[in-house]
Amino acid sequence: MSRKEVFVLRDLLGTNNEVAASIRSELEARGVLGVNLLSSPGSGKTSLLEALADRLKGTFRMAVIEGDIETERDAERIRARGVPAWQITTGGACHLEAKMVGKVLGGVPADIDFLFIENVGNLVCPANYDLGESLRCVLLSAPEGDDKPKKYPRAFLSADCLLLTKSDLIPHVPFDPSKAAAEARAINPRLRVFRLSALSGEGLPEFTAFLTQALEKLRSSHA
Amino acid sequence: MSRKEVFVLRDLLGTNNEVAASIRSELEARGVLGVNLLSSPGSGKTSLLEALADRLKGTFRMAVIEGDIETERDAERIRARGVPAWQITTGGACHLEAKMVGKVLGGVPADIDFLFIENVGNLVCPANYDLGESLRCVLLSAPEGDDKPKKYPRAFLSADCLLLTKSDLIPHVPFDPSKAAAEARAINPRLRVFRLSALSGEGLPEFTAFLTQALEKLRSSHA
Repeated sequence: MSRKEVFVLRDLLGTNNEVAASIRSELEARGVLGVNLLSSPGSGKTSLLEALADRLKGTFRMAVIEGDIETERDAERIRARGVPAWQITTGGACHLEAKMVGKVLGGVPADIDFLFIENVGNLVCPANYDLGESLRCVLLSAPEGDDKPKKYPRAFLSADCLLLTKSDLIPHVPFDPSKAAAEARAINPRLRVFRLSALSGEGLPEFTAFLTQALEKLRSSHA
Repeated sequence: MSRKEVFVLRDLLGTNNEVAASIRSELEARGVLGVNLLSSPGSGKTSLLEALADRLKGTFRMAVIEGDIETERDAERIRARGVPAWQITTGGACHLEAKMVGKVLGGVPADIDFLFIENVGNLVCPANYDLGESLRCVLLSAPEGDDKPKKYPRAFLSADCLLLTKSDLIPHVPFDPSKAAAEARAINPRLRVFRLSALSGEGLPEFTAFLTQALEKLRSSHA
């Protein structure tokens, strides 16, 4: 990377971090838990959000900001579950940035409990961009393989939780969830790990309980 | 994107394209078919290369350049099949660039038939970087879902072949290979589509035949 590129990247991240800090303050003041979901394409981010919409319904209110390069598809899937959703199409950019989130935040109802932000499917670049979330979750689906954490370390280093998704496929693929978890924890010992399947429902009660505890903690520390 | 960022990106791609053109000339002069494999993490690029190593053995000579952010793991898997392999670790960068390939090219034996370049697992950024290949293949594995081409169009637009990998998992996941192929062909009508499984061997004879025909064509046009 040339000196010129380093300067441009530093400027970009500097501005991003300032916008992200302001988003986090605003969400926390509202008592909203912001959750940034980050993974490869097709790791099951939208399916997890559909499952969470069904589980939280009637007890908690959620909204979703969807990031994709093109199409409104993911937001349409979320709206079909009765959850308000905003689609950001980056038109080529490989990650969401805080300013993109900031632009749609004004339209998001103030009285929600959870704001989920589904990042562009990419296990590399989104890890560099704080979006103002309070919780960052990286998803790794069973078919992707248990060797990924050390190959893509930054996503695992920067996350609070590791969600081992599509656990229903474990009998059909060479994937050792203990190995994946141990490798990710060697990078980031504070990672909370959940084994999940949006299809079978495995792990959803535990992950939902974790989210609601994080919400309570956020609200008690901002009361 | 600011004017400054646009200028930097244009400079970067300009230089990359010049280096890539020189690599392509060199490979074609040697009679070597360069193949760039591009996909999300965990779509089966390395498994496909292992399967091709076994199929080509004794008839054709291949070498592999592996791109990863960290670890020598993929090159080690390839070497275990008796195929020479070079690992490029980008240390954070989300894609390979032609100059990285150029740096290792001097060590690659001149008398090979195929040079496979496995890009960093990322369905977005690598699509913007010509590596001097003669053939670009994008992989989409069944568990990733058949809705990906329109969400990540550039990878499909820039490729010559679409490899629908992990076809052995189709009975276990919601994936319609005809839908995925039709959507990708709507973006890029010239795409050749192969349905593959490194595990069951489905599609490998057809894809190997396609590669050897492409090699013959390259050699006859440079004879």
